[in-house]
Amino acid sequence: MKFEPKSDHYHKKVRESFERQKFMKLINAKLIDVQPGYCEIHVPYDSNLTQQHGFFHAGVISTIADNTAGYAGFSLMEKDSSVLTVEFKINLMAPGDGELLIGKSTVLKNGRTLTICRSEIFIVKNGKEKLCAAAQITLIELKNSTDGST
Amino acid sequence: MKFEPKSDHYHKKVRESFERQKFMKLINAKLIDVQPGYCEIHVPYDSNLTQQHGFFHAGVISTIADNTAGYAGFSLMEKDSSVLTVEFKINLMAPGDGELLIGKSTVLKNGRTLTICRSEIFIVKNGKEKLCAAAQITLIELKNSTDGST
Amino acid sequence: MKFEPKSDHYHKKVRESFERQKFMKLINAKLIDVQPGYCEIHVPYDSNLTQQHGFFHAGVISTIADNTAGYAGFSLMEKDSSVLTVEFKINLMAPGDGELLIGKSTVLKNGRTLTICRSEIFIVKNGKEKLCAAAQITLIELKNSTDGST
Amino acid sequence: MKFEPKSDHYHKKVRESFERQKFMKLINAKLIDVQPGYCEIHVPYDSNLTQQHGFFHAGVISTIADNTAGYAGFSLMEKDSSVLTVEFKINLMAPGDGELLIGKSTVLKNGRTLTICRSEIFIVKNGKEKLCAAAQITLIELKNSTDGST
Repeated sequence: MKFEPKSDHYHKKVRESFERQKFMKLINAKLIDVQPGYCEIHVPYDSNLTQQHGFFHAGVISTIADNTAGYAGFSLMEKDSSVLTVEFKINLMAPGDGELLIGKSTVLKNGRTLTICRSEIFIVKNGKEKLCAAAQITLIELKNSTDGST
Repeated sequence: MKFEPKSDHYHKKVRESFERQKFMKLINAKLIDVQPGYCEIHVPYDSNLTQQHGFFHAGVISTIADNTAGYAGFSLMEKDSSVLTVEFKINLMAPGDGELLIGKSTVLKNGRTLTICRSEIFIVKNGKEKLCAAAQITLIELKNSTDGST
Repeated sequence: MKFEPKSDHYHKKVRESFERQKFMKLINAKLIDVQPGYCEIHVPYDSNLTQQHGFFHAGVISTIADNTAGYAGFSLMEKDSSVLTVEFKINLMAPGDGELLIGKSTVLKNGRTLTICRSEIFIVKNGKEKLCAAAQITLIELKNSTDGST
Repeated sequence: MKFEPKSDHYHKKVRESFERQKFMKLINAKLIDVQPGYCEIHVPYDSNLTQQHGFFHAGVISTIADNTAGYAGFSLMEKDSSVLTVEFKINLMAPGDGELLIGKSTVLKNGRTLTICRSEIFIVKNGKEKLCAAAQITLIELKNSTDGST
């Protein structure tokens, strides 16, 4: 599906919001691509991000599934809107065993109030990509609300 | 519901697994309580854990919802089993605006292969607790499998 | 949690909406109880409602999980509002093997736009009740919108 | 993704199981297509299947989302296995306002024990198809278990 952004500056708006999220810095997440209704985020392996077997923690995988969706949806929202996650559901299908986590999210429906997205998370090991998790996410657009804290 | 642990050392087993999760250290999560079929984890506020408005990031909230469930379920599993999250769904109901995040999870059903839990996440602001998120989680028990990476 | 209905006629409003749902008649569902933020629906066994093993079909169980939530939430909404299910997630934990299906739903949060509920579905066999399924549901309140089709 | 069925008779196996589900007959559901890892089911409009506005009831939409997934997964399972839905999550994105409901489901991952699917439900009005709902489903394969009740 092709989406038309409501704001010319959707890319700048997403990048600035991403940079205000200190948790993204803590886990060293990188905003790789933003298109209208699409977002991609990468997280390189770091032993600080692991669970008991030394793989990416499900919490990191879920964070990326949610955040890619949030920004895929945010790219289509009004200039003066902010975005919140209402809920999400994620299936963890393969261990996060690899050197890089890649999250990609696409908008399924961009409604007046609610936006629905699907995210896929891939794990890259020795350069080979594998589906690691899949999520379905509901976002709400808060109109006339600033995204930043100031 | 009352559950009988299959292993005497359920508490020690959970604590050791928790301590092997380096991501728990990164976000400064504390394992507060483990009972058969129950787990409680706390995360004190830290600006490194925030989203764009300076509140706890949904990724941190989700991590705690999942991890409390994982250990609530793990407390009931065989001594030689390990646990994986199959999937979870979380509703974010109030902003993570406060000084402490409290996650509590309870087992709904402990089956032979699958265990279902419900988690509630509370945010404490000026000492007052508020429901922040609610989740429903499916776990799988992997028999004859070590929990650790060694 | 105790909820205050915004409309005196919440009980009548729910009952009338329930009676307009022809699918409830088809599956012979009965509206048993409505309180502010709570709803209970029963479905007696009928071989027309079964899956391949002769038990209640997951579709019937899900229908009741969703509908009890819808009316638990609707009981708290404005007089001139209608309700829609945004999404729900259900875990099927035991076969629907019995003579009666009982659905109960409780509101977790009643927000301005969105309402979150949890439903439990019990199966009664030889008079003994067993937890069959558990669901978590997101509803949206559509203000100044009629519930009926006329 | 391309899947190899483990049983030559996957098509026959699915059709026979579908025909044993009396609830499918009650709602007049038709099994339209089965491929390895794929299933499509149609339900023509009938006023008995409606909610309060005269549209397809969310319970019918959910039933189809779940059942297409169940059979998409079942098509890949061993000859002597049966299938159960562990859980599913569905987003209802547009009213079921039309003359035909079309459900399509695709397997995302076919594991040893668990299979994950995604379903899309379309509503056809005046011949025009529209995305009505999207679901993500977890199935479990029960080995050495008959699908039928006899």
